[in-house]
Amino acid sequence: MKTIALKSMKWLRWVVIPAVVSIALLVFVTPAYAQDTGPIDELTRGLNTFWMLLTAFLVFWMQAGFALVEAGLTRAKNTTNILFKNLIDFVFATLAFWAFGYAFMYGSSAGGWIGTSGYFVDASLDDVVGVPVLAFWFFQLVFAGTAATIVSGAMAERTKFSAYLIYSFFITAIIYPIAGHWVWGGGWLWTLPFGDGFRDFAGSTVVHSVGGWLALIGAIVLGPRLGRFTKDGKAVAIPGHSITLVTLGVFILWLGWFGFNPGSQLAIHGGNADAVALVAVNTALAAAAGAIGAMSISWLFVAKKPDLATTLNGALAGLVAITAPCAYVTPGFSLLIGVIGGVIVVYGAVWLEKLKIDDPVGAVPVHLFNGVWGTLAIGIFGTEGIGSLVTGDTGQLVAQFIGVAAYGVWCVVTGSILFLGIKAVNGLRVSREEEIKGLDIEEHGIQAYPNDVVGALGATD
Amino acid sequence: MKTIALKSMKWLRWVVIPAVVSIALLVFVTPAYAQDTGPIDELTRGLNTFWMLLTAFLVFWMQAGFALVEAGLTRAKNTTNILFKNLIDFVFATLAFWAFGYAFMYGSSAGGWIGTSGYFVDASLDDVVGVPVLAFWFFQLVFAGTAATIVSGAMAERTKFSAYLIYSFFITAIIYPIAGHWVWGGGWLWTLPFGDGFRDFAGSTVVHSVGGWLALIGAIVLGPRLGRFTKDGKAVAIPGHSITLVTLGVFILWLGWFGFNPGSQLAIHGGNADAVALVAVNTALAAAAGAIGAMSISWLFVAKKPDLATTLNGALAGLVAITAPCAYVTPGFSLLIGVIGGVIVVYGAVWLEKLKIDDPVGAVPVHLFNGVWGTLAIGIFGTEGIGSLVTGDTGQLVAQFIGVAAYGVWCVVTGSILFLGIKAVNGLRVSREEEIKGLDIEEHGIQAYPNDVVGALGATD
Amino acid sequence: MKTIALKSMKWLRWVVIPAVVSIALLVFVTPAYAQDTGPIDELTRGLNTFWMLLTAFLVFWMQAGFALVEAGLTRAKNTTNILFKNLIDFVFATLAFWAFGYAFMYGSSAGGWIGTSGYFVDASLDDVVGVPVLAFWFFQLVFAGTAATIVSGAMAERTKFSAYLIYSFFITAIIYPIAGHWVWGGGWLWTLPFGDGFRDFAGSTVVHSVGGWLALIGAIVLGPRLGRFTKDGKAVAIPGHSITLVTLGVFILWLGWFGFNPGSQLAIHGGNADAVALVAVNTALAAAAGAIGAMSISWLFVAKKPDLATTLNGALAGLVAITAPCAYVTPGFSLLIGVIGGVIVVYGAVWLEKLKIDDPVGAVPVHLFNGVWGTLAIGIFGTEGIGSLVTGDTGQLVAQFIGVAAYGVWCVVTGSILFLGIKAVNGLRVSREEEIKGLDIEEHGIQAYPNDVVGALGATD
Repeated sequence: MKTIALKSMKWLRWVVIPAVVSIALLVFVTPAYAQDTGPIDELTRGLNTFWMLLTAFLVFWMQAGFALVEAGLTRAKNTTNILFKNLIDFVFATLAFWAFGYAFMYGSSAGGWIGTSGYFVDASLDDVVGVPVLAFWFFQLVFAGTAATIVSGAMAERTKFSAYLIYSFFITAIIYPIAGHWVWGGGWLWTLPFGDGFRDFAGSTVVHSVGGWLALIGAIVLGPRLGRFTKDGKAVAIPGHSITLVTLGVFILWLGWFGFNPGSQLAIHGGNADAVALVAVNTALAAAAGAIGAMSISWLFVAKKPDLATTLNGALAGLVAITAPCAYVTPGFSLLIGVIGGVIVVYGAVWLEKLKIDDPVGAVPVHLFNGVWGTLAIGIFGTEGIGSLVTGDTGQLVAQFIGVAAYGVWCVVTGSILFLGIKAVNGLRVSREEEIKGLDIEEHGIQAYPNDVVGALGATD
Repeated sequence: MKTIALKSMKWLRWVVIPAVVSIALLVFVTPAYAQDTGPIDELTRGLNTFWMLLTAFLVFWMQAGFALVEAGLTRAKNTTNILFKNLIDFVFATLAFWAFGYAFMYGSSAGGWIGTSGYFVDASLDDVVGVPVLAFWFFQLVFAGTAATIVSGAMAERTKFSAYLIYSFFITAIIYPIAGHWVWGGGWLWTLPFGDGFRDFAGSTVVHSVGGWLALIGAIVLGPRLGRFTKDGKAVAIPGHSITLVTLGVFILWLGWFGFNPGSQLAIHGGNADAVALVAVNTALAAAAGAIGAMSISWLFVAKKPDLATTLNGALAGLVAITAPCAYVTPGFSLLIGVIGGVIVVYGAVWLEKLKIDDPVGAVPVHLFNGVWGTLAIGIFGTEGIGSLVTGDTGQLVAQFIGVAAYGVWCVVTGSILFLGIKAVNGLRVSREEEIKGLDIEEHGIQAYPNDVVGALGATD
Repeated sequence: MKTIALKSMKWLRWVVIPAVVSIALLVFVTPAYAQDTGPIDELTRGLNTFWMLLTAFLVFWMQAGFALVEAGLTRAKNTTNILFKNLIDFVFATLAFWAFGYAFMYGSSAGGWIGTSGYFVDASLDDVVGVPVLAFWFFQLVFAGTAATIVSGAMAERTKFSAYLIYSFFITAIIYPIAGHWVWGGGWLWTLPFGDGFRDFAGSTVVHSVGGWLALIGAIVLGPRLGRFTKDGKAVAIPGHSITLVTLGVFILWLGWFGFNPGSQLAIHGGNADAVALVAVNTALAAAAGAIGAMSISWLFVAKKPDLATTLNGALAGLVAITAPCAYVTPGFSLLIGVIGGVIVVYGAVWLEKLKIDDPVGAVPVHLFNGVWGTLAIGIFGTEGIGSLVTGDTGQLVAQFIGVAAYGVWCVVTGSILFLGIKAVNGLRVSREEEIKGLDIEEHGIQAYPNDVVGALGATD
């Protein structure tokens, strides 16, 4: 029987052995053809590099938006000065973030507190998140530039240009990158043992509240503009010179935010497309809701009229607020986060005025108060979903509180040292005479609109 | 012989059986490696999501363009008001199109007349045209916003802000989405039994003529601005306050149109790349031709000088006209369509003035007259080609006429109800006193340029 | 033994033969599944078409930047005129580059001097660099438009509109495309037997110095504006009417340059992503360095104050300078090239003033001097690397010199013929009276800001 069995099963050799051989070949040889993922990997890398650069271009464009918003909300006599500051902070950010900032933020971590490698970035470094390191650097640069540019608005119309150069450099080279390392560099806040650790998707805290805290400290150290509060403490509105510039600036920022938030997914292939689409929609809804919220509350209870500047700041408030949670919440909650952001910006401005803090453009209510609000909102409305945040208990909210507090402490301490140091060594504020005449003539020797009207009539020859 | 034959063919077992086994394995196992189209599908979805979002960002940017064009073509005393309207219509569009509009436009069709599903859009809905539903929603949102924002220009300098809020909401929530459903939602006009059915590639009719019709009805119901026509019926030009804003606005719109038209292909992989490239080139040629056409005709026969505002409107006319046919015509015909568009916008404005209809920015000649022209042009110049329109007989032109007429009827009826209703219930027009003082001071309590010149001279402290 | 050996090795048949069969099948059959590169090719084509169009959109946007920079740096009475010129040159570029220009630049080469095929471009032509020919045409169009628009700035405030129409047409239809053919059309400079041949990655020479040379010749033929130099030869600054417009314009140009330079890689998949990322970073660094260089040098030695217009021109200088070498140098050298560019723009302007050449916007120092500088920099700092330039000897520098000289000769000769011809036949300059009254009123019959301030006060009814 054995022989028969063997004999009858002999044909199996012609099946089993070839099968084994074929399978072996398929497993070890086919991949060379079939799993030659080279072209696909190259496409994925190209697509994501494109996505990262393009969204970075949009964020760069926000520099123009900040410049116009700040110029429009201040007086014509200080226009050159504020535009100049908004230009030069990105210039400094570019150079400082290339030489040091990137290394402090994304270099190998020293205990989760600061990065320590990658100075003077060039193409020799490895890919980051699947794209060339230089593309990643570029994306991070424009975020650093945003943090720096927020400060100038709150300190507008009275800060020395030389002082600006100094603090702008320190913010982009040191204060922002180190703070950024704590979360986005994988530092101690990222790994916090509450919830999933501190989370801030696109920078409500890392970018906006850092800028906002420094703006607040700067505005306090500087003191209010001449004439902003009467001797008996009444606030006097100082209207800016062009609501048209403010409006255009806000449209630019709004557009730029569609790079800021969706771009922070850092990729767009596969499931990233879902996250990106959600983030874009949440961003749009929160902006609209913020505008509605601010317009309505101001109309009903504060200005008693529909106020354009307030409504524009409401849109920005919604945008700042949704920046942290945009990948972790549903569209419905985004709308809610935005509306509350709009309310916050209205009463935040009222509150600052009561405290006699002069913030000419509303940088603190927009970037600080809403940066904090949006960051906490992750702990309240965040759901297990596309952005992968697993929450549902109070742990995440605890993590968010710790993060918010940590950034507050860091910025208040370093900001105070920075601004008080500049005040002591270089002087922070222009003279009374210069402030009255305008910073343009005194600091830069020109007027922003020298032959306006007159020129139109041909009288300058 | 049989034995020998068998014996001699025994070696075949070592070939045939392994071959069969190998083939079986190749057919059933290899695909797991080789035909794993997952990565390619993921890339395609990522690429097209990116394309759709990016072109949507460009279309969003058109909001700033409309705001600047309308502000520049009207007086400084009404600038805040017109900017505010251009902001708030996109805000309303965002909220209304999210809650209802999208459902009415793209939900399951009720007899081809209105969509009825997909309210309060979120990520749980299925992909549309191969991208996440939220990306598709975002793209559609910015088109809805465009339709809404056209109206404000024709009704500028005399419409109540509260009235604007009301009609802006109804347009984006109801009038535009239902009209859009008839074509882009696959409704009754799409399946019209003439030619290929009514076609409108990117919205000459669906977006621009809908906006243009409503603008016309609104301008008629409102009546002309004070001083626009003398008592003996002579037209008096009321120059806008800044041709610089108009020019920048048109450049923004032009840029945005490169999202509007090419983006309407909804994908860019494979053959879509050809269609997209054709659409981009046709858009560029029609814009240039429209500018040349309007400048020349106006220079020769109307203004007798090269007029910048007219030339800018000529570029917009070419852009509106090519919006419907851009995927169905050759570059040469695009140029022709654009030139004719430029002529139409010049004589259209003259005609409106004769009818004593006051359209401060030329919204009707640009968006309505050229929207109609471009839509009909499909029936005249459309060729079987990249955009897949099979024509060559008069059937397509009949379809285009029916579509144009249907949108005219819909907009005239709903627009009349809307504007006359608002007039009766809320009031549509500001008071004579307010119109003279300017809407900025009266409605919003501010001036757009409060310390212009004066501020530059340092006199505000 | 033989028999035993055979017998013992008989099992090999079950391994060797199936293995051979499997391998044969794998080699000839698997590719049908595995190497079906169709989908990948379609994706690559789609991705690169997208990349090319998107970067072209950014370059188109530079038209708005040039318009604002030139408007801001000139007087309000000439604003309509300069905006109009910046509009119409792109209009002409579009039509002329479609009909002839592209054929002259990229058609089959007649001896390396001029292209001679591809008139009236349409979709029937073959793909270029892997994308639809119409996408490639669109990309090239916006570069032609840039070259044309540079000229208007140097000739601002005194050139007849009709003269502008004529020379703008000749530049985009003939002078630029033929010059472009020599390098980018694969002409005689591309194949120069020194180094790798003349190289200009994104157009420091092909676009910017061509525009700059023509601007210089035009400014010389025109002569300075009335009042620009006193009778005893002292220069009198004529301030422009809005530094805000200049600043916004420069931000637009800066953004557009992220299309201009990275887009010139013409693809982004695979290794192109590395090149694109390097180019983007080099562009950012050179812009920042140019701004710093110009600000510092001007502050220390020339204006003695931080001057915004100079700093903005410094950023543009860095951008122009890095345009040629951006793919061939390291980030560190980009920074150096930018700083030197900033210095050049400051002293270049001083030098032009000494020569009594009136260039109202600094087009010559920015585009010509830095175009030359950046082109030569390839021969100095270029390294074998991502951009594939193999250099290291003086051959490359020789090639760069020859190219720079060739473009100089071409532009000086054709420019002189063009401008002197127009002067003789049509007249190049407006009348003294018109120049004093302003070109807006005389040539176009309008004022750019007719009811400024007055309008805001409601006095126009």
